[in-house]
Amino acid sequence: MEYFPPALEKLVEQFARLPGIGRKSAQRLAFFTLSLPEEEVEVFAQSIQEAKRSIALCPVCQNLTEGDGLCPVCASEKRDGRTVCVVADPKDVIAIERAREYQGQYHVLHGVLSPMNGVGPDDLHIKSLLGRVSQGEIEEVIMATNPDTEGEATAMYLSRMLKPFGVKVTRLAYGVPVGGHLEYADDATLMRALEGRREM
Amino acid sequence: MEYFPPALEKLVEQFARLPGIGRKSAQRLAFFTLSLPEEEVEVFAQSIQEAKRSIALCPVCQNLTEGDGLCPVCASEKRDGRTVCVVADPKDVIAIERAREYQGQYHVLHGVLSPMNGVGPDDLHIKSLLGRVSQGEIEEVIMATNPDTEGEATAMYLSRMLKPFGVKVTRLAYGVPVGGHLEYADDATLMRALEGRREM
Repeated sequence: MEYFPPALEKLVEQFARLPGIGRKSAQRLAFFTLSLPEEEVEVFAQSIQEAKRSIALCPVCQNLTEGDGLCPVCASEKRDGRTVCVVADPKDVIAIERAREYQGQYHVLHGVLSPMNGVGPDDLHIKSLLGRVSQGEIEEVIMATNPDTEGEATAMYLSRMLKPFGVKVTRLAYGVPVGGHLEYADDATLMRALEGRREM
Repeated sequence: MEYFPPALEKLVEQFARLPGIGRKSAQRLAFFTLSLPEEEVEVFAQSIQEAKRSIALCPVCQNLTEGDGLCPVCASEKRDGRTVCVVADPKDVIAIERAREYQGQYHVLHGVLSPMNGVGPDDLHIKSLLGRVSQGEIEEVIMATNPDTEGEATAMYLSRMLKPFGVKVTRLAYGVPVGGHLEYADDATLMRALEGRREM
């Protein structure tokens, strides 16, 4: 006996493809969607199509932006064009913006070097970064890839590529996280925190 | 500084409305959706619209079905029309069908009596159940609402409504779950399991 009408089954399958959504959760989401008024379902479906259609990459920093123009950061006159922060992912831009500390621009690689997964330099937005730096206005490039093996290797690789342009290349500080507990910090982090200690 | 392009923000908001999806998960789902090829995004959005448009309630048992006809269970000649299993939710039909034991028909209430949440008898599909029973072909009504306070109260209420029709009203057996551990069973379940003990 078929339990689900085919259209419902198809919707469940679509939800189950999303990351972190198993079949059980997908069923819950599908039933919830069916329980919404018709207008709201329409808004939901359209916002999916709209987002895909209207969101593009900023031609300068490769961050997500709406339409064909510059992203809000690149378009803003308040942002300092002499500093560029290199991140792996648009989500990382959001994380850094949330700290409300950084006033420079960004460059989004859309990934990290990962030979195991077949991701090489040509698969990342590296050429456009070198193009930006070669114009001579950028004074400092901050490597803000993740502090893991691949992020580290990507930062090392880029740093070697950028040095010939005579630009300053820096890396985010390592150390114990604010609000954390020393007893839970791993050895590598503690070692880096000691190495990087500063006078008070 | 606005971090998200408006179309992306709107998509995140839509995902965040789904049950069990917080803002952080919604962001992950939105980014994943953007990363899909255009055709697949289209399929996803259309399956949402399709499901809402094509799924209706079976005119007999009120279970979800596609189009205007009977649901597969009501349409099947193999199912025994003398037994009706009353459940709160279409999901419960699926759970019971999965057990491959039940050969009768269903009736879906689409909720349970819940005075606290303002759900009274008129908000559930009770009239259509009484209508079915009044036709005289149904011999047994199995109450398969959830074994919680509201499910229990709903079963009691319906049982009282159905008795005048001279129909047999039964309730799912209570007991320890198969594969469970006695030490983790709560007192009420153990008490019911003892009460309902059967000769081996």
